Amino acid sequence: MSAETSNSGGAYKVLEQRFHRLSVLDQVGGILHWDQAVIMPDGAAAARAEQVSTLSVLSHELMTGPEMADLLAAADEAALEDWPAANLALMRRQHAHQTAVPADLVAARSKACSACEMAWRAARKDGDFAAVLPYLREVVRLTREMAQVKAAALGLSPYDALLDGYDPGNRAELIDPVFADLAGFLPGLLDDVLARQSAAGPLTVPQGPFPIDSQAALGRRLMQAVGFDFNRGRLDVSIHPFCGGATDDVRITTRYDEADFTQSLMGVLHETGHALYELGRPGDPWRNQPIGEARGMTVHESQSLLMEMQACRSRDFLHYAAPLIREAFGVEGPAYEVDALQRLYTRVSRGFIRVDADEVTYPLHVILRYRLERAIIAGDLEVADLPGVWNEGMRELLGVVPPNDRLGCLQDIHWYDGAIGYFPTYTLGALMAAQLFAAATEQDSDILPGIARGDFVPLVAWLRVNIHAHGSRYSADELLTRATGAPLGTAAFKAHLQRRYLGS
Amino acid sequence: MSAETSNSGGAYKVLEQRFHRLSVLDQVGGILHWDQAVIMPDGAAAARAEQVSTLSVLSHELMTGPEMADLLAAADEAALEDWPAANLALMRRQHAHQTAVPADLVAARSKACSACEMAWRAARKDGDFAAVLPYLREVVRLTREMAQVKAAALGLSPYDALLDGYDPGNRAELIDPVFADLAGFLPGLLDDVLARQSAAGPLTVPQGPFPIDSQAALGRRLMQAVGFDFNRGRLDVSIHPFCGGATDDVRITTRYDEADFTQSLMGVLHETGHALYELGRPGDPWRNQPIGEARGMTVHESQSLLMEMQACRSRDFLHYAAPLIREAFGVEGPAYEVDALQRLYTRVSRGFIRVDADEVTYPLHVILRYRLERAIIAGDLEVADLPGVWNEGMRELLGVVPPNDRLGCLQDIHWYDGAIGYFPTYTLGALMAAQLFAAATEQDSDILPGIARGDFVPLVAWLRVNIHAHGSRYSADELLTRATGAPLGTAAFKAHLQRRYLGS
Repeated sequence: MSAETSNSGGAYKVLEQRFHRLSVLDQVGGILHWDQAVIMPDGAAAARAEQVSTLSVLSHELMTGPEMADLLAAADEAALEDWPAANLALMRRQHAHQTAVPADLVAARSKACSACEMAWRAARKDGDFAAVLPYLREVVRLTREMAQVKAAALGLSPYDALLDGYDPGNRAELIDPVFADLAGFLPGLLDDVLARQSAAGPLTVPQGPFPIDSQAALGRRLMQAVGFDFNRGRLDVSIHPFCGGATDDVRITTRYDEADFTQSLMGVLHETGHALYELGRPGDPWRNQPIGEARGMTVHESQSLLMEMQACRSRDFLHYAAPLIREAFGVEGPAYEVDALQRLYTRVSRGFIRVDADEVTYPLHVILRYRLERAIIAGDLEVADLPGVWNEGMRELLGVVPPNDRLGCLQDIHWYDGAIGYFPTYTLGALMAAQLFAAATEQDSDILPGIARGDFVPLVAWLRVNIHAHGSRYSADELLTRATGAPLGTAAFKAHLQRRYLGS
Repeated sequence: MSAETSNSGGAYKVLEQRFHRLSVLDQVGGILHWDQAVIMPDGAAAARAEQVSTLSVLSHELMTGPEMADLLAAADEAALEDWPAANLALMRRQHAHQTAVPADLVAARSKACSACEMAWRAARKDGDFAAVLPYLREVVRLTREMAQVKAAALGLSPYDALLDGYDPGNRAELIDPVFADLAGFLPGLLDDVLARQSAAGPLTVPQGPFPIDSQAALGRRLMQAVGFDFNRGRLDVSIHPFCGGATDDVRITTRYDEADFTQSLMGVLHETGHALYELGRPGDPWRNQPIGEARGMTVHESQSLLMEMQACRSRDFLHYAAPLIREAFGVEGPAYEVDALQRLYTRVSRGFIRVDADEVTYPLHVILRYRLERAIIAGDLEVADLPGVWNEGMRELLGVVPPNDRLGCLQDIHWYDGAIGYFPTYTLGALMAAQLFAAATEQDSDILPGIARGDFVPLVAWLRVNIHAHGSRYSADELLTRATGAPLGTAAFKAHLQRRYLGS
């Protein structure tokens, strides 16, 4: 170790430089990923894959080299202030995750995931689960192995070790009670909502075509109203919408359907919620440190769902948006009045597909996946038995059974790409969004009137102070407790659903 | 040194991996640069600068670390086949260039160039040379220092050491005789051409507006005819047109003027010439090795000028393009007939501005700059005296004197950004283009008839075999000699100008 790193304070300073560099490399990866999804010509796929993997290897080498371990051992949190000490803990956490898994297991799993994802694309199209089964078995085998070595290194259960990789601090023991609560509550609510909806008669649905350019202009206008800064970001088109990019360069995407503007519009507002979080993270000197990062997938999803589900599907917001929609497309008529738009944007149904689900049924789709992936990691469920238990779970939770595996256990990419332990964050994010929105609107009486006139300054200011500006300083649950006075629960979400869907 | 690198063959194999990685990082830089020029929001400038410099530092560390020097010392070209041995020599050359200059000089010069470029932007706008003078003095001082340390390390004269950085193997002793020849020939030719042009009467110039979308569609159509592969590349818009991107992902840009389609159209064909070179470089296993790279700026410029000046400004090509132009804009009339378009595309004038110059006067602009930058590096010319000697040189070579420094010595970014030793390649490229095109059309009688019907397959096939596929295997002069039977000369270029502009 050099003189520079021979004392604890010096070691921490060098660590800051190393993690800053890792963060910058990560941003480069963000731009490459965006480019690949939005811009890149098809023939560049192989060269791009090599660029991305070279950056990954460089980052991995920087993280796992002997110098990093020495520096982390030499740094002493007791000598540091609050934020640097918390930053050091996050460095150690990232280091532990990356060094826990042997390089050959990382490589084997990465290869198995690529092969399985490719097989899944064909299998899903044909609804042929048997075709992808051997690939998925291999992915599960290697993911269980990874979970076990991570569990040993991190002192967690294997499933928690996977959860923690996507969502630091998330644990099955936090999830179990809230999911049990929802699984008890939602099916009955769903019956009531569907009965009420059916009594209200048929919907008046906007009829296109809605030119893509007009949709994009409307999306940009509403993004601006919500507070997106186009000097530090973009809106573009990709097959799978996402929020990505880099520091001060946050790029969201959507896809347009000329026959229906409504889905893309709400999708844009959803991604804008993610983007505002990224744009509102702590500034220098923390921006490119672990503590300056967004705090895991649950908090991230809470920001997109707060914007989409809590704020923008509200009657208040649609009151503001309806005239802008009519103006954007030069249309008039009952389908473009607040009543019709609100009914459209709060339509509930027992569907087969998670990504098309409404906010009442969505958690049921997630709970099914959570149960199954826990059983898979625990070794209690054979991969070959997935289709049967999937359909059984759908019957129990949603009251419908998919007619084929394309609409069943083949619908999502996650498991086939090795992402086990990710699904719960969607619903935890929805719960957190409801809890945050309730607290925010209670604490600041300007927020709701602002939304009704397209002024999101009060809402975004509250989010910035209470969520965005904290980066990764607190765990998700601490963050929520500080902002709302309580840890994650179901009360606010349930109250929200009852109010919006039953008027009670 | 590890066992893996302890013998020469092993050392070379490891070097291949190292240089492959450097090449991939360079590609990432190419995508970031394209993104910055085409797509990036303004507010991301600082973060992007840090991404780019982080990649540079990583590459520099990989190149200049002690392991690289050990490997290069251990590798033995005598034990290698032809291409690997040549590849090793190129590795050593790159390493010598990068290690010759001390890190603090690199940093000081980079900082001085940034400051000077910024000062130049304001000074050019105001035509105020005095405002940029202290900055330019510093850039020149540090560039002379760099030239001297490189000269010592590479065994070259200081100016040759700068030339060699842009154009491997290029030397003042190769340039001097051809530039002397042109400086003697061109002024007289220019008188004759202008007299002939003036006797032919006024031009009929196309009158816009020409919608940008139609210009872009026409550009794409002609790029496709020339042989650009849109599966491995793109055409976009940027303020300063360039050819960039990455392996299998070659991206050219242009800028459109609604009032005038003609400049952008020829600009697109120019960049397409660069792009075809990049797309035609050697495939695996050489593509991402030094030997797989394009062979310096002279050869690169020869490919763009061959396409633009030799092929596409020819009467043959305009015969093919004229109906497509009329169709693209839905226009008719004498301005869109072959005669008028050809006169427009071969118009010659005594102008002040290099980038607007025609192919007769362009070399005179370059010769002026070559003389001055040599004198600056030799210490024979004070930077403060630039405006005066510039104007004197313009009077001597072109017969006109710029009314202010904005149209004089402030017009080009190159020196203000530290690029000294670059200018000659423009004219060497023009000479090489003429010599290659003469040889190609003589060797394959299908080339000219192909161009006349928009079929560039014979021409591009000849270029691929004779230029592109050789990568950096040969020096520019060897490459030219193998393809045309002679080293670089002025005969083909002079014959081309006399034929095209005097009909003789």
